[in-house]
Amino acid sequence: MENKKSRGPGRPVGTGNAAQTQAQILNAAIVCFSEGGYSSTSNRDIAQRAQVTTGLLYHYFASKQDLYRCALREANECLLQAYREACEEAPDVTSMEQLCLGLERVIALSESRPGLMRFAGSAVAEVQQRPDLVVVADASEDSFLKLFIALLERARARGELRADVDITSSAGVLLACFIGLGLMHGVVHSESTYAQMLRSFQHLIMGHFAQSPDKP
Amino acid sequence: MENKKSRGPGRPVGTGNAAQTQAQILNAAIVCFSEGGYSSTSNRDIAQRAQVTTGLLYHYFASKQDLYRCALREANECLLQAYREACEEAPDVTSMEQLCLGLERVIALSESRPGLMRFAGSAVAEVQQRPDLVVVADASEDSFLKLFIALLERARARGELRADVDITSSAGVLLACFIGLGLMHGVVHSESTYAQMLRSFQHLIMGHFAQSPDKP
Repeated sequence: MENKKSRGPGRPVGTGNAAQTQAQILNAAIVCFSEGGYSSTSNRDIAQRAQVTTGLLYHYFASKQDLYRCALREANECLLQAYREACEEAPDVTSMEQLCLGLERVIALSESRPGLMRFAGSAVAEVQQRPDLVVVADASEDSFLKLFIALLERARARGELRADVDITSSAGVLLACFIGLGLMHGVVHSESTYAQMLRSFQHLIMGHFAQSPDKP
Repeated sequence: MENKKSRGPGRPVGTGNAAQTQAQILNAAIVCFSEGGYSSTSNRDIAQRAQVTTGLLYHYFASKQDLYRCALREANECLLQAYREACEEAPDVTSMEQLCLGLERVIALSESRPGLMRFAGSAVAEVQQRPDLVVVADASEDSFLKLFIALLERARARGELRADVDITSSAGVLLACFIGLGLMHGVVHSESTYAQMLRSFQHLIMGHFAQSPDKP
């Protein structure tokens, strides 16, 4: 974990105070939205948490809606990047094994960035009931869906996937599972319990829920 | 499906108009809440949809909160009952096969009762951000968790589950997946696409995402 970038690898890394302040506000927004949801969180809450003035916040983000979209993009980029890096670093293992390696990175991310997983998961539900935020949700769901489609297509090409498994709807299933796991973060109360859950999910995708103990 | 009870098998079946009116209001509440969420739905919306007066609605349900709780209990009871019936009717198959049979029943239920799956799924997210509704959510999540724990314990006892799969956190994973799939109902727009997704999820729990085509 030594070379981990603390502010999310998907975002251009600035050198000045401006980039730092912007990242500080986004981090605060992720924590606040994860705790109170969109409607209960005010820009003042976020400014207070980020230790900046509300005026400075408006210098960087036009509105709460804008801030929510940017925070969601940031959170999703972080998670996507974790999976992409796992795939790049283990190009020879099966696709489901790559997904497991990505989940291990997400466990580390979930511990180092409070609120990230819960925010990303709850955002999907929130956005369903708020059409004004829909655009960004579609875009981010789309990125995850593309990642899962690419993984399943790779699995098929390498002969790792049963012939009767449909790629498009299975990618949707993986998206549903990840959304559900994101929501669960708000329920389990401890990072270690959550980590154990993500590891049990690895057993599920590896087929271990339907494998007898004598088959290693 | 000839003997299907249209109003949910978990609820005592009344014979008079009262039970019928109450069920009518609950059905309307499920549809309204699934479309607009808790805060955007009024008791008047629900009364209009149920084709009763607001006064009559208040005769049966003390408040919107009460109505939400009863609707959620009704929705969860319907879904739970589908899994329980599947288990009872196929006592000899593996636990994961029983879960697949339950999912087939849910596909039928999702087609016959509009809004049911979406409401049940979105309720979990909603309830996380509304502490006043928490009690019922815990109770219903608990029922699903108990169902999954019982299924996994049965699988372990029958030698169908890998030794390193932890039952408690795996039951949590199944709950997360079902919540995610519930939320997905609002995204996919067609019952047939949704049914295909629930069938792909069956492949996931049966281990087919990590099974090569030449292993039947």
